[in-house]
Amino acid sequence: MAVLNVDLGSRSYPIYVGPGLLSQKDLFRNHISAKEVAVVTDDNVAAIYLDDLLISLSGFSVTCHVLPSGEEYKTLETLGTLFDTMIAEPCSRETTLIALGGGVVGDIAGFAAACYQRGIRFIQIPTTLLAQVDSAVGGKTAVNHPLGKNMIGAFYQPACVIADTQTLSTLDRRQLSAGIAEVVKYGAIRDPAFFQWLEQNMEALCRCDNSATEHAILECCRNKAELVAADEEERAERTLLNLGHTFGHAIESATGYGQWLHGEAVAAGMVLAAQMSCCLGWLAAAELDRIRELLVRAGLPVSPPKDISVETFLSHMSRDKKVADKRIRLVLLEGIGRARLVADYPDETLTEVLAAAVA
Amino acid sequence: MAVLNVDLGSRSYPIYVGPGLLSQKDLFRNHISAKEVAVVTDDNVAAIYLDDLLISLSGFSVTCHVLPSGEEYKTLETLGTLFDTMIAEPCSRETTLIALGGGVVGDIAGFAAACYQRGIRFIQIPTTLLAQVDSAVGGKTAVNHPLGKNMIGAFYQPACVIADTQTLSTLDRRQLSAGIAEVVKYGAIRDPAFFQWLEQNMEALCRCDNSATEHAILECCRNKAELVAADEEERAERTLLNLGHTFGHAIESATGYGQWLHGEAVAAGMVLAAQMSCCLGWLAAAELDRIRELLVRAGLPVSPPKDISVETFLSHMSRDKKVADKRIRLVLLEGIGRARLVADYPDETLTEVLAAAVA
Repeated sequence: MAVLNVDLGSRSYPIYVGPGLLSQKDLFRNHISAKEVAVVTDDNVAAIYLDDLLISLSGFSVTCHVLPSGEEYKTLETLGTLFDTMIAEPCSRETTLIALGGGVVGDIAGFAAACYQRGIRFIQIPTTLLAQVDSAVGGKTAVNHPLGKNMIGAFYQPACVIADTQTLSTLDRRQLSAGIAEVVKYGAIRDPAFFQWLEQNMEALCRCDNSATEHAILECCRNKAELVAADEEERAERTLLNLGHTFGHAIESATGYGQWLHGEAVAAGMVLAAQMSCCLGWLAAAELDRIRELLVRAGLPVSPPKDISVETFLSHMSRDKKVADKRIRLVLLEGIGRARLVADYPDETLTEVLAAAVA
Repeated sequence: MAVLNVDLGSRSYPIYVGPGLLSQKDLFRNHISAKEVAVVTDDNVAAIYLDDLLISLSGFSVTCHVLPSGEEYKTLETLGTLFDTMIAEPCSRETTLIALGGGVVGDIAGFAAACYQRGIRFIQIPTTLLAQVDSAVGGKTAVNHPLGKNMIGAFYQPACVIADTQTLSTLDRRQLSAGIAEVVKYGAIRDPAFFQWLEQNMEALCRCDNSATEHAILECCRNKAELVAADEEERAERTLLNLGHTFGHAIESATGYGQWLHGEAVAAGMVLAAQMSCCLGWLAAAELDRIRELLVRAGLPVSPPKDISVETFLSHMSRDKKVADKRIRLVLLEGIGRARLVADYPDETLTEVLAAAVA
């Protein structure tokens, strides 16, 4: 088991990474403060891992709430059903909430923990690659609004993150690829050596080779922990983690949540950001090709769906959380490993890149 | 204009108290950071004060959302309609949200500010006595759940509180009395001198005498600011502010939100807490009488509705946020001005007090 620390003063917490952690009772005992525990998971994950977790939680008083799986359920309404369960029980303010699942479960459950009785303790147990390398770390929680992704949420840090790498063995190929999109992102925005490593090890990662996977998770978590420690509430450097996300969120909301997996939309979005960086003369065509090729090898889409018009694209992008002074700010690349947040690009470049992509 | 400070390190903020503040443009300019403003109010308050506020906000780009008035609308659903307006606009993360209204508006709008794009700047403009002395100060925000009051919310501090005492002139008598209940609370829990002052000045307060009202608001805010600075997230001394609230919240949720005003329920709840303190031999009968008499002079109810059974009462109380280890913890009195949080009372004393009250 490897341990990384997210350094946030009194809100610092460890990330545990390794195989079989779901069965390590002591990890749970060390991070749960009272008898009461509420476990939130989804129907897919519950069928495979809930029993294992409940064995590790023997001795605690446990309430379970199983959500339907899929991004399309990451809504205020779903959150309401979770609150119904917790209040009917009733779960007290001493309860520790455990999120067992992928990014959707972690985002909803984390937001529930942030709001229930104005905040209760919570633990992230990410079971997908995407959640282990990205969404479970850093305290971003949210639900979607029909008009905009992750519009309603909180910065709320977990007490710990327990990433059991064995849970990745049951991921389907599409979910695994979606996670790799976020892995590639870390290389692209700030870690050229890791990007190179990915170019050399993509096949090992795609077949879930243990040591390759663990290395990738640790590198991603290390990068994320550094950015989060520097800028918890995303006022500066943390925005760079959004490479591909302004485009990607627009794809997700325009197609109706759940059609595209988040990681798939981010992959197509990263290529759009790289294309735009190329058009602006910031990124060499060869570097754009390296990014696109790496994503293709991961089995990811590298262009948006053709049936979104440029206008629809721009309208969804205009609701992005990075908008300031009515301007869509974009994370672009000055090279592989060098990302920058940009507001002063020519509007026509953005329009041209989108038009070419959906033509 | 008087200014008090709530001392919370980097999240410290001023409370401005005085007549005519709604027209002081500079107050707004000093506390709004970008061009975009969203004003949240209710239909009652909008009819009287929204135009004045909009004049003070000339030059800003303002979005308004008017809520139906009443505690029964302090729900996740109402919150959803506010998010719909803000996202359709679209309001960016730079927006400053202004809550113009009583406790219900402040609680919903404050929670919306805490969650919208994971947190935006907000300003409280409380227009009722209850909000000026209590709910607008200290950063508690929430919506209700059918089974429990203020169950879903956040600790989220405003950038400032602007208490224009002129707005109290349009309060109806019932709303004014409801505010006085919280005023009496401050005297009862920690300020015997203020309690005595209230005994001497209750009639002036009830007729909204300017200097009496301003003195009362400042004394309440000073007491609240001290407790909040010492214990922002209510782990210790801040709980004392809940005198009468565990009983009061049970009255509010058991009767259906909106039947009893919050302050009315708190008044009846404080008498129950005082009666229980008396039964335990902690409070002299003469002190119980002083509390009850002061509330009667304020035109407040001093006993709960008769149609709530003891079982229903206890069931609603068991969902209180102060429950720990399945135990309902109560704020009781060891004297006027000396409150204490208690878990180790005999259950039968609680049952007897409730049974006598609803008999």
